[in-house]
Amino acid sequence: MRNLALTLRFVGTNFHGFQVQKNARSVCEALQDGLEAILGSRHEVKGCSRTDAGVHANQYVLSFKTESRIACSRLPLALNTALPADLAVLHCREVPEDFHARYSATGKRYIYRIYNSRLPDPFLEGRAWRIPAPLDERLMQAAAPYLTGRRDFSSFCTLDDHNRDKDKVRTVHNIEAHREGQLITIAVTGDGFLYNMVRILCGTLVYVAQGKIPLEALPGIVAGRDRKLAGPTLPACGLYLDEVFYE
Amino acid sequence: MRNLALTLRFVGTNFHGFQVQKNARSVCEALQDGLEAILGSRHEVKGCSRTDAGVHANQYVLSFKTESRIACSRLPLALNTALPADLAVLHCREVPEDFHARYSATGKRYIYRIYNSRLPDPFLEGRAWRIPAPLDERLMQAAAPYLTGRRDFSSFCTLDDHNRDKDKVRTVHNIEAHREGQLITIAVTGDGFLYNMVRILCGTLVYVAQGKIPLEALPGIVAGRDRKLAGPTLPACGLYLDEVFYE
Repeated sequence: MRNLALTLRFVGTNFHGFQVQKNARSVCEALQDGLEAILGSRHEVKGCSRTDAGVHANQYVLSFKTESRIACSRLPLALNTALPADLAVLHCREVPEDFHARYSATGKRYIYRIYNSRLPDPFLEGRAWRIPAPLDERLMQAAAPYLTGRRDFSSFCTLDDHNRDKDKVRTVHNIEAHREGQLITIAVTGDGFLYNMVRILCGTLVYVAQGKIPLEALPGIVAGRDRKLAGPTLPACGLYLDEVFYE
Repeated sequence: MRNLALTLRFVGTNFHGFQVQKNARSVCEALQDGLEAILGSRHEVKGCSRTDAGVHANQYVLSFKTESRIACSRLPLALNTALPADLAVLHCREVPEDFHARYSATGKRYIYRIYNSRLPDPFLEGRAWRIPAPLDERLMQAAAPYLTGRRDFSSFCTLDDHNRDKDKVRTVHNIEAHREGQLITIAVTGDGFLYNMVRILCGTLVYVAQGKIPLEALPGIVAGRDRKLAGPTLPACGLYLDEVFYE
């Protein structure tokens, strides 16, 4: 039995996230369908994270165990012929038996793209979140030290039945905001992320950049451990899982 | 009566070109619907070029005459609220009565995007043409002098009922090919273009870059004035009308 890790790229617009769902198109099911077409049988796959509907991935990692002897060098080319146009496999490698795409990950980088323009750009529709009012990305950058490090991120987490009583301490290694013309890209790297955490962190940075949250208020927002203190949850369409890190 | 020029941007994937067609979605009709919603009446519009189904535009210019007194500074914001997500108005300006988006143009720049990779990128699906085999873009650049200047471009034109007997002399000012990673962009600037001319020029450059057409053969291909001598017509999905020039 081999354990194989695949790196995927997908446009999230028409997927209801990674996880298989009833009556909704998921990345996992599309991938399993493709694997079945190429390898001849259904495989259980383990993803590196659930992703929400509409969230994109530049690099998403999943792993699956298989009896197939197909060469790793050949699998992506073969599998891409059996996948829909909004999903592609970029890479395949054999990994140790105990590798798990989610639990073996040591960290992840997400990026969030904001199109800061009064007028829409059809090419960015569904691929960046448009904010018409001017944003000062230097204020976003100035906010980074208050939101990085090992902290309790309760203020930056949407509570649901699964996470209500769980530990909310995570380490954010790095937050970088930069502008190219009207496009602002925020990159957030950390050891792990709570539900909606990147979208809430970025919503808080937007409020900082608009002067709605002063820099001095950030320590209190973190210390308050209350979701209501932070900025809004930005829409899924601007969010990209950019890279997953392993030892 | 004012004459207004609009600059549009559109993703061509789901349009059957600019011109109104029966039973097919066109940029012109979508724009006229939007204008009618905002200005209250149907307007005749004159586009800068017919574009084929699937061809994109970074900047497409059209003009229309109107009794409306709406301010040019306000029209794009208002009109974008009434347009579909794959079409936007970027700019509006008042132009002289005799301005015609097509006949007043002194030149145009098109770009063609090639994704030169064995593996697909879902984010470029329908937005670049993928060619798996390696391409040497320096050979494309070396071919440019043979295909620029004032020439008869009959070898680079799809004949139809409208153009069979018409003059095929055009001036190509400039052809530039450059690579960023796996993405090759070819920019072609000229005073005007024959039917499919940019896509055939780029198909010829691809054959040059693959060694299927040697540089020394290019003068004969041009002089032959025979479509069969040149390279293939590349697909519409990689083509972008990038800019239209006026005096």
